Amino acid sequence: MTGTLTIAGLGPGDLALVTPEVSAALADATDIVGYAPYVARVPVRAGLTLHASDNRVELLRAGEALRLASEGRRVVVVSSGDPGVFAMASAVFEALEASPQWQGLPIRVLPGVTAMLAAAARIGAPLGHDFCAINLSDNLKPWPMIERRLRLAVEADFAIALYNPRSVSRPEGFGRVLEILGEAGRDDRLVMFARAVSTPEERIETVMLREARPEMADMRTLVIVGNSATRRVGRWVYAPRQAR
Amino acid sequence: MTGTLTIAGLGPGDLALVTPEVSAALADATDIVGYAPYVARVPVRAGLTLHASDNRVELLRAGEALRLASEGRRVVVVSSGDPGVFAMASAVFEALEASPQWQGLPIRVLPGVTAMLAAAARIGAPLGHDFCAINLSDNLKPWPMIERRLRLAVEADFAIALYNPRSVSRPEGFGRVLEILGEAGRDDRLVMFARAVSTPEERIETVMLREARPEMADMRTLVIVGNSATRRVGRWVYAPRQAR
Repeated sequence: MTGTLTIAGLGPGDLALVTPEVSAALADATDIVGYAPYVARVPVRAGLTLHASDNRVELLRAGEALRLASEGRRVVVVSSGDPGVFAMASAVFEALEASPQWQGLPIRVLPGVTAMLAAAARIGAPLGHDFCAINLSDNLKPWPMIERRLRLAVEADFAIALYNPRSVSRPEGFGRVLEILGEAGRDDRLVMFARAVSTPEERIETVMLREARPEMADMRTLVIVGNSATRRVGRWVYAPRQAR
Repeated sequence: MTGTLTIAGLGPGDLALVTPEVSAALADATDIVGYAPYVARVPVRAGLTLHASDNRVELLRAGEALRLASEGRRVVVVSSGDPGVFAMASAVFEALEASPQWQGLPIRVLPGVTAMLAAAARIGAPLGHDFCAINLSDNLKPWPMIERRLRLAVEADFAIALYNPRSVSRPEGFGRVLEILGEAGRDDRLVMFARAVSTPEERIETVMLREARPEMADMRTLVIVGNSATRRVGRWVYAPRQAR
């Protein structure tokens, strides 16, 4: 039997946001590999082995998934959101590069609704004009690089989606982000906090930059910083399509 | 009867990439409003009225959708991909801002798999590190702004997703983009062309910047420009998580 490796995105939380393609892959799998809270979202059934691991062991987890596939298993590596956005897909390809013996395995990546899209939909359309996405987490890049990117993103007038604003490894970073935005731009810029979108714990809050506080974000929050034209209409926030 | 307005993303093309949430909204709708090729993707059934319109009339279309909802219809505005990324959501909120009489209508935005996520999944994980998305189309912003954003995006070392590289209104822009990237960076940077992902016309091609030609993209192509660390492993392309 030839094993397969599928890297799948479970979306932000609600089952109604899991694509049929991903549901079919989960139904066909022999093994699920992933960070424990994401593995817990996969329906349990006879014949399915769950391999739940801790956070921050992405490369080990990717290697385990490749090994299982090489032994003939139908393995699905699960990520929240989309597997290609600050999630498991890059880790699997890193592990694959380090392990040439597995490079012939059949691999598929199945996209999903990443957190910024789910958050934007609840808020209105804050990503309706050019935007960028920056990961504040993981100790995988030096902090000065993050500051530099933020300043350039403001200069480019991108809307900015911030993933992992209050990660365990770098909880203080988000306060510094708010300071940099304050130095760089207008303090009436809109800042949107979208927590645990599509779950029972969902909470959406929009404030002006001068009202934003680090503690408004936690580990389950996606933050979107509006561009200079982002505006409110009723309870909604959107970026106009037109720019001058 | 109270009308409703739902702004839904149909994903890149394949039915297996339409979320159950969107499928349920389509099944419950009385009216579908959208650009003709997207409306054509909605299953026809008795009792469902299709309102297909031309490209480049987004505000008119948004106004029509709001009017239908105000008359008590259950209206779904369809976009390809995600409705909040260079699609109909911003246009609906613009129309809503101009029409205060409709601001009490129940509105929902349903996210979808946007083109860059579907493209990235086919390619590997080129958006696995910080990235930005720039729309080259639509005459909705001055060209110098696009050039400026591109240069800043290269300076920030973002991977860059380019939507609408060869729009009817600005087909020559993409050639200029390639020139700017050549002036700004290394000519061995990877450039990925993902055409009509998840449809029978899908075609994926990765080249080095110095080999990239404007005609490699057409109106159905999403282009991803790698960051300075983006690399190949076998037939895959990915952005390493780590940056220095």
